Amino acid sequence: MTDFAGEAARLDAADPLAKWRGHFLLDDAVAYLDGNSLGALPRATPERIETVVRREWGDGLIASWNPDGAGGADWITLPQRVGAKIAPLIGAGPDEVIAADSVSVNLFKLVSAALAHFRGDGHRRRKVVLSEPGNFPTDLYMVDGLEGQGLATRKLAPREHLEAALDKDVALLLLTHVHYKTGAMHDMLRLTRAAHEAGALVLWDLSHSVGAVPVDLTAAQADFAVGCGYKYLNGGPGAPAFAYVAPRHHRALRQPLSGWMGHAQPFAFEDDYAPAPGVDRLLAGTPPVIQMSALEEGVDLIARIGMDALVAKSRRMSEFTRRAVAELVPELECISPADPKARGSQLSWRHEHAYELCQALIERRVVGDFRAPDALRLGFAPAYVRYADCWRAVSELRDILDSGAWREERFAERAAVT
Amino acid sequence: MTDFAGEAARLDAADPLAKWRGHFLLDDAVAYLDGNSLGALPRATPERIETVVRREWGDGLIASWNPDGAGGADWITLPQRVGAKIAPLIGAGPDEVIAADSVSVNLFKLVSAALAHFRGDGHRRRKVVLSEPGNFPTDLYMVDGLEGQGLATRKLAPREHLEAALDKDVALLLLTHVHYKTGAMHDMLRLTRAAHEAGALVLWDLSHSVGAVPVDLTAAQADFAVGCGYKYLNGGPGAPAFAYVAPRHHRALRQPLSGWMGHAQPFAFEDDYAPAPGVDRLLAGTPPVIQMSALEEGVDLIARIGMDALVAKSRRMSEFTRRAVAELVPELECISPADPKARGSQLSWRHEHAYELCQALIERRVVGDFRAPDALRLGFAPAYVRYADCWRAVSELRDILDSGAWREERFAERAAVT
Repeated sequence: MTDFAGEAARLDAADPLAKWRGHFLLDDAVAYLDGNSLGALPRATPERIETVVRREWGDGLIASWNPDGAGGADWITLPQRVGAKIAPLIGAGPDEVIAADSVSVNLFKLVSAALAHFRGDGHRRRKVVLSEPGNFPTDLYMVDGLEGQGLATRKLAPREHLEAALDKDVALLLLTHVHYKTGAMHDMLRLTRAAHEAGALVLWDLSHSVGAVPVDLTAAQADFAVGCGYKYLNGGPGAPAFAYVAPRHHRALRQPLSGWMGHAQPFAFEDDYAPAPGVDRLLAGTPPVIQMSALEEGVDLIARIGMDALVAKSRRMSEFTRRAVAELVPELECISPADPKARGSQLSWRHEHAYELCQALIERRVVGDFRAPDALRLGFAPAYVRYADCWRAVSELRDILDSGAWREERFAERAAVT
Repeated sequence: MTDFAGEAARLDAADPLAKWRGHFLLDDAVAYLDGNSLGALPRATPERIETVVRREWGDGLIASWNPDGAGGADWITLPQRVGAKIAPLIGAGPDEVIAADSVSVNLFKLVSAALAHFRGDGHRRRKVVLSEPGNFPTDLYMVDGLEGQGLATRKLAPREHLEAALDKDVALLLLTHVHYKTGAMHDMLRLTRAAHEAGALVLWDLSHSVGAVPVDLTAAQADFAVGCGYKYLNGGPGAPAFAYVAPRHHRALRQPLSGWMGHAQPFAFEDDYAPAPGVDRLLAGTPPVIQMSALEEGVDLIARIGMDALVAKSRRMSEFTRRAVAELVPELECISPADPKARGSQLSWRHEHAYELCQALIERRVVGDFRAPDALRLGFAPAYVRYADCWRAVSELRDILDSGAWREERFAERAAVT
């Protein structure tokens, strides 16, 4: 039998990222394997928020919108500044990404923009949005919303048939790069090329990718992307999301959530909308300054650690866990790709009692999550997770199954958010 | 000449709300007359935010979404909880208001919902959205966005001709209750009735009303409303906004930003959208927990002070200022209604050099704002503004004009946000 405990200790001792765990405020007694749902709190964030609240808002008041406000707060450019910092993490230029709203709302903007593209001059009308069943729900629901308005036709094809489904009516291929449940990663390059060959545009949802896996939107020639601020970017609960638009689309980009912050001159207070240049026109309302500042701290930290090192550790760590579960907890069926390069920084296993197993783990302070109907999911945020945490998850799982602890009634009660 | 300084001192001494100023963190040396743009920082808010960040996020992590999370955080119900607290301030029931997104995004949802109503069975198709020129820009721009999608036709009529413009093609009358620049207040009862008689629905933007003037959406039989969290509600920069839907529309309500948080069962992860009951279906993405918590503090404070007392002080205070400016600074032309019951908690004056006057005032720590092209605007947030602040604004204005101080070059430089 492999000595996984010893292997974990050796890997932790040799981990070049080990020092970064101290940059997060995390209880050492907790094995936090749910950073793919809500990232941990960076140590610098509470102080930054305190400054934003007390000095910038409390003392600076309205002047903090300006660059010469209290401490040079310059709130008005936060969406662009934070977007520019996210850009290198996803292979984008600084003027191609903006932080704003939620993933859901940004999906609506960009799916709408893709559909508007095909209503434009010189284009054959197309209104089909192609995705896969089991995509993250909000991605599909946003297309439902546009379908309800008569603007889109939703079409789903299993991932192995996506390329065949790219016919001449498809306006947009809408996919989540790393699947939220299985962690399976799409081949961004190949699918983007296939969509373009079929005359369609592509929108990648990077919610489970950014900060965890290599992404190069420019090399893939992707058209649009969105992503989440509160997972691997550690921006805090409900952090703003981001949106990317390839520069070739900047001039013609039209999106319907045309609020005043996306106007060419918001403070001219004109009656008619005129879009701001480039991705700035994706802004709608007033940006949530406090959460945007927290997101900036999270992004700064990930950028300092560096994507290459994060990706290397993520793969090593998830692979260690996959092997250990396969050998020691074989009754769990892994539904994630076996090749670490073909998956995100997460693993999921199918089990009839996955919900109860997850609850029993949480009681032992090993935090993963459950994804309906039968998946136990563990995430490996490489910035702060230790190999010892992974080993603890595996050994506790073995113990919970052996002891039958998961059968206890309290573990069957469903929480509001699972 | 009236002794306005003495009058201000007497009014402050007799002010029943004077004690509430201590519930805000405000520099006594500043006369803050811009709470209608960004409300002041409630004293309780920094500590609440610290708790949300360190304890709920840092320690509680993902479990804080649940009611049994750290400190019973129960993040998932924040939008409903905060909405229910805003409801009594606007004459709504607790299940009729939800806190979410920005005013702009909520406008898009509800204008879309109104248009969908007239695409529904048993209705004659209507797609005209009627508003007034000079309405707050984002209200008009959101209709532009829907017009770009082919779903709406924007029509503007000056306020004195709105009723005559309510023809059989109008789907929705969209108005800001208190005008952002002049403070002029629409007669909500009369215009709502007129719209209904013409077969149209009504959406009131309460951004400059909530927390400052009496609003009774139920009595007015309004259909929809939106409002801002960061003005008189003191929710902080970029606080979430809110949306109201009359209960008679709850069952049929359809809005296109149909994200997972507005699904009947968000954590069932189904492929097809099914709306949550009532206003819950207005939710799209994950709520910004930190800002939503700050908003809750602001709303709690306004609710404790009480709308009747706030309205009474607001009227007395703006009237004091209006009289003083009329007598002592007659070169400023008041563009706000003279009757305090016909205006919001603000006053604006036209002056060729309003921008420079505003900048010179700010340098003397009297903070108002400028609204293009030529308005100087002062807001009277009754929870914390003193009569002495108002008097200081008037006397400094007189001095700035007499001394010609506003002519100094530095006051002409335009800031990013004015």
